[in-house]
Amino acid sequence: MAWTDHSFMARNAVAKGKAGQHHTLTEEEQGEYHYVYGPYATPVLTIAPGDVVAVETLDAFGGAIKTEDDLPSKVLKFPYVNPQNGPIAVTGAQKGDVLAVHIHAVLPRGPQPAGTTALIPGFGALVADPNLFLNPHITERVKKMEVTPEGGVKFSDRITLPYEPFVGTMGVSPQLEAVSSLQPDYWGGNMDCPDVAPGAIIYFPVQRDEAHFFIGDCHGRQGDGELCGVAVEIAATVTVQIDLIKSWSIPGVRIETEDFIMSLGSARPMEDAARMAYRDLVRWLVEDYGFEESEAYFLATQAGKMRVGNMVDPKYTMGASMLKSYIS
Amino acid sequence: MAWTDHSFMARNAVAKGKAGQHHTLTEEEQGEYHYVYGPYATPVLTIAPGDVVAVETLDAFGGAIKTEDDLPSKVLKFPYVNPQNGPIAVTGAQKGDVLAVHIHAVLPRGPQPAGTTALIPGFGALVADPNLFLNPHITERVKKMEVTPEGGVKFSDRITLPYEPFVGTMGVSPQLEAVSSLQPDYWGGNMDCPDVAPGAIIYFPVQRDEAHFFIGDCHGRQGDGELCGVAVEIAATVTVQIDLIKSWSIPGVRIETEDFIMSLGSARPMEDAARMAYRDLVRWLVEDYGFEESEAYFLATQAGKMRVGNMVDPKYTMGASMLKSYIS
Amino acid sequence: MAWTDHSFMARNAVAKGKAGQHHTLTEEEQGEYHYVYGPYATPVLTIAPGDVVAVETLDAFGGAIKTEDDLPSKVLKFPYVNPQNGPIAVTGAQKGDVLAVHIHAVLPRGPQPAGTTALIPGFGALVADPNLFLNPHITERVKKMEVTPEGGVKFSDRITLPYEPFVGTMGVSPQLEAVSSLQPDYWGGNMDCPDVAPGAIIYFPVQRDEAHFFIGDCHGRQGDGELCGVAVEIAATVTVQIDLIKSWSIPGVRIETEDFIMSLGSARPMEDAARMAYRDLVRWLVEDYGFEESEAYFLATQAGKMRVGNMVDPKYTMGASMLKSYIS
Amino acid sequence: MAWTDHSFMARNAVAKGKAGQHHTLTEEEQGEYHYVYGPYATPVLTIAPGDVVAVETLDAFGGAIKTEDDLPSKVLKFPYVNPQNGPIAVTGAQKGDVLAVHIHAVLPRGPQPAGTTALIPGFGALVADPNLFLNPHITERVKKMEVTPEGGVKFSDRITLPYEPFVGTMGVSPQLEAVSSLQPDYWGGNMDCPDVAPGAIIYFPVQRDEAHFFIGDCHGRQGDGELCGVAVEIAATVTVQIDLIKSWSIPGVRIETEDFIMSLGSARPMEDAARMAYRDLVRWLVEDYGFEESEAYFLATQAGKMRVGNMVDPKYTMGASMLKSYIS
Repeated sequence: MAWTDHSFMARNAVAKGKAGQHHTLTEEEQGEYHYVYGPYATPVLTIAPGDVVAVETLDAFGGAIKTEDDLPSKVLKFPYVNPQNGPIAVTGAQKGDVLAVHIHAVLPRGPQPAGTTALIPGFGALVADPNLFLNPHITERVKKMEVTPEGGVKFSDRITLPYEPFVGTMGVSPQLEAVSSLQPDYWGGNMDCPDVAPGAIIYFPVQRDEAHFFIGDCHGRQGDGELCGVAVEIAATVTVQIDLIKSWSIPGVRIETEDFIMSLGSARPMEDAARMAYRDLVRWLVEDYGFEESEAYFLATQAGKMRVGNMVDPKYTMGASMLKSYIS
Repeated sequence: MAWTDHSFMARNAVAKGKAGQHHTLTEEEQGEYHYVYGPYATPVLTIAPGDVVAVETLDAFGGAIKTEDDLPSKVLKFPYVNPQNGPIAVTGAQKGDVLAVHIHAVLPRGPQPAGTTALIPGFGALVADPNLFLNPHITERVKKMEVTPEGGVKFSDRITLPYEPFVGTMGVSPQLEAVSSLQPDYWGGNMDCPDVAPGAIIYFPVQRDEAHFFIGDCHGRQGDGELCGVAVEIAATVTVQIDLIKSWSIPGVRIETEDFIMSLGSARPMEDAARMAYRDLVRWLVEDYGFEESEAYFLATQAGKMRVGNMVDPKYTMGASMLKSYIS
Repeated sequence: MAWTDHSFMARNAVAKGKAGQHHTLTEEEQGEYHYVYGPYATPVLTIAPGDVVAVETLDAFGGAIKTEDDLPSKVLKFPYVNPQNGPIAVTGAQKGDVLAVHIHAVLPRGPQPAGTTALIPGFGALVADPNLFLNPHITERVKKMEVTPEGGVKFSDRITLPYEPFVGTMGVSPQLEAVSSLQPDYWGGNMDCPDVAPGAIIYFPVQRDEAHFFIGDCHGRQGDGELCGVAVEIAATVTVQIDLIKSWSIPGVRIETEDFIMSLGSARPMEDAARMAYRDLVRWLVEDYGFEESEAYFLATQAGKMRVGNMVDPKYTMGASMLKSYIS
Repeated sequence: MAWTDHSFMARNAVAKGKAGQHHTLTEEEQGEYHYVYGPYATPVLTIAPGDVVAVETLDAFGGAIKTEDDLPSKVLKFPYVNPQNGPIAVTGAQKGDVLAVHIHAVLPRGPQPAGTTALIPGFGALVADPNLFLNPHITERVKKMEVTPEGGVKFSDRITLPYEPFVGTMGVSPQLEAVSSLQPDYWGGNMDCPDVAPGAIIYFPVQRDEAHFFIGDCHGRQGDGELCGVAVEIAATVTVQIDLIKSWSIPGVRIETEDFIMSLGSARPMEDAARMAYRDLVRWLVEDYGFEESEAYFLATQAGKMRVGNMVDPKYTMGASMLKSYIS
């Protein structure tokens, strides 16, 4: 029996976590990609809860960086970066519900070297934003890397890193806002959190009818914080099973895996993202695990783990988690 | 052969990482404990590089919280909290050197329940500071827990957590300043970082003649961030081997273990602590591992790990690390 | 001769700062109000550069708080707060241009007491956000005040404050995003900066064809920071003259008055908003006043003034200014 | 009758705000200057409450920058910057009391050009800290300026700025800590707030017996925030009258002038400094002006003013003020 059979998805969702009909969302079927998470785009696909969709995502640069000579300042056209597939409408979803997204697989697409990272002028956690500081830029640079599930990420002749893929950007549409796909928030978006990975179930609070799910920006791997602002960016085929939990009120994104539960917070400064994540973890422990609030606060103090998702996007993303073995 | 034989301590320190003379620093030998890290206290012990000291530390409350009825607001007398042993003078140490502290063991002392955590009014990451906010306090509370190396931390009838001890507060004296033992900074202090644990070597930048080493505030365990501000506080016997690396210029605290190297940053807001940690990790990769700077920045982006030490102290502490397997 | 004859608007705009045709935008003409600044709404009015529009704005609560018994938690329906008039299309405006908005007057509308302030649960600079903290709320409260241009703001029996009105929320549409009217950013929005007042000219960087100007949320007065999050909120008739400066590249909102020039920055944490404001002021001094950069930096250091606009909105707004008498 | 006759100092202090004996504290009498605010230095002068002291302060560089060729990176020796006079012991002062310091005058000393500002590598609000960022430095630079009370500050051939002097660093010793004179905090220190000016009374919460007052770092003038980190630094003769208010519990520094009362907050990030300042202003309005708390919060919202003192020091300093005309 799989751990997912005991997941919140299996226990509470409309399709009980059972996989339904299979769909594809190829580049061709997608047509125009999107650069905001919002309610103003027409769905490209409508599915029932439980359905599975194999999505062809572009990399965060829309494929514009083909070689190490394609400098970002030359080939990128802001705000047209981080293209997103969708929106995918989910029948029956309403504000106050939760979309449960079980990630089956993330596989790289396209010719090798399939992975791209880059130093983009004025962008990244260790460089000065030119709208805030007077310093000269560091040198712009692109690095292409071979990426395969079997061979890993060929970082350099000297270093090969494991292929540990995840989805950088994923979520549901806000109710009235249409927000850049570069930004994370309570509805998901550009969280750049390595725990949004194959095997995990991600829970998003639905904000509008039929949820309008977006997805894109896959990474072959990434360190904590996505330091320079650009992970191992890949075009990918992502397979997700999307279920619907009616009437579950959650203030932001949550993750469930075989081993842990995690609450995400996206905010600035970073301590507010960390507080938001832990605050919701305490709430979750109280609501679904029977803890008295101060006891949950104590447990998070002694046994909580914190993931730094990104420290580069318009909001920083932190994830506070608790091992299921402590609370089940 | 032990990993420590290849450590920076073994390769570069005066005593080559070999254990020298053994000393004790019992409660009685300590006499008065200290509440600031500074150059104005007389050394209680002078040792040679390589010497080993078994120190009897008090818990962060100086033992004042004996039962769950001893509320912090009644029994604590600020600023007399977080008592520290020391200073221990290390012969030959000068500004510009590094103290290498190899932690051999952290063992709980005193009668059970040996562990204490608490909700202190107005203190903690999820409570409003009354000097900033108007909200009423949450309820004050103390929780005592049995703590043994074999049996772990008895958090509750339902939950036992592993005994994963570490030293919450440790470091060297600043040059001119005398800073509260509640604060972490580039010289160490109250970092509350769980990686400052048995087996690790901690490197501190010496600021004055003979370094003047302080230590205290052991924890039976702690989650990332020390959320409520109080870990599993224990009185302990800590055994440390203290060596000296001459003329190693490091801007802050670094950690080395069998598996990884880590740079610590302490600052507010939290993103500055994270930047400081990663900035120094990049510097370390360049200086001691032969990386070109942008390559080190890329590697940290794709493979760096970030520990949230504390998110409650006067400065927050973050640790950026890199697996040795990637860089050796 | 008026100071405006020497303004950037008079010197560089299409209509040279001369008032053109007069329009009204009454509540009835507006019809549906808007809750996001974005490109997806159909213009309610199209004007030529230089035209003057008298706009009937609602208060930030859409008039829902009529008495001190109308508690926000009962009568407000998020996200339907801070209703905005517009969008007003300005012919000829394109991305890369600047909209110059000269505020002629802000006059209160409706029955007395026309002014409203309130303590909204979990909102305000001195209260703990329940998504970050565990503390109980402070008591919810509404305060109604008589507001007239002649008589001022009747704060209490004991205190009458001057009528110093301004526009809390005003700006142009982003290019692709549709952002809550509660948020300020580089395009304007909910800046809550008291310098956006009658007599001033506000410069906005146009992001899309015809600019799409929005306006609302007038205040009878406000202290620095809009501390509790709610100023003296009034329904108003605002008269603005809207001109167009072609091909002026500015990164954010700027203000010009008879006495000073000011650059605004909106960001979190607050120091980033302050840096953004001062960084742009330095840029402005270099580009339009002939200063060498380090000289401009020195002058801002010795003679710059900083306004705290808001410290409560999703981004904080700061304004860095320089007296014209020092630089002309 | 002077406004000071109604001040908190006149009403509550031991000497009732009357000037007592006159003292000098010349460079020679001072001898060694101090670089930390702490309890470990021997008083250089002991006075009675009400006594007046004329102090010869050095500039923040200890006079080491004599010409525009004396670059900071060459002539400064950290941590020996920002030298302070004192400590001055005040008889009868105890923890829980308040030192009331009435500033009579700040006059420049030494040969012209008496004023110095500088761009110090890696320091300043608009430059990237090299412990956080990878960017290259901006160019180091010194600017010397003639400064006289009558002629003002000769910023350049083109610009003369008013002489508006104040004391950059002033305060009392902490209880146990000895903190760099570069840092501001609840006991005062390097607040760099232009309201600490001749005519004002500054209130400091005493932390130890006889208070131990320090002073230094005078500025010929400064803009809000001390942007590049260096104001118009001058050596000066400062005359202060120091009185003592017994048993007045205040959490941080407060200022009183003829026109307003102000609470200061020093913290990072900046919003926490702003909250601390406004939080204490609300407290003050409640304790000494008879306001109910929510009414004080409303009044601060509608009529409070916020000064940005510094945005460059280890803690940022903000001042929240209220006009006396509104509350008396």
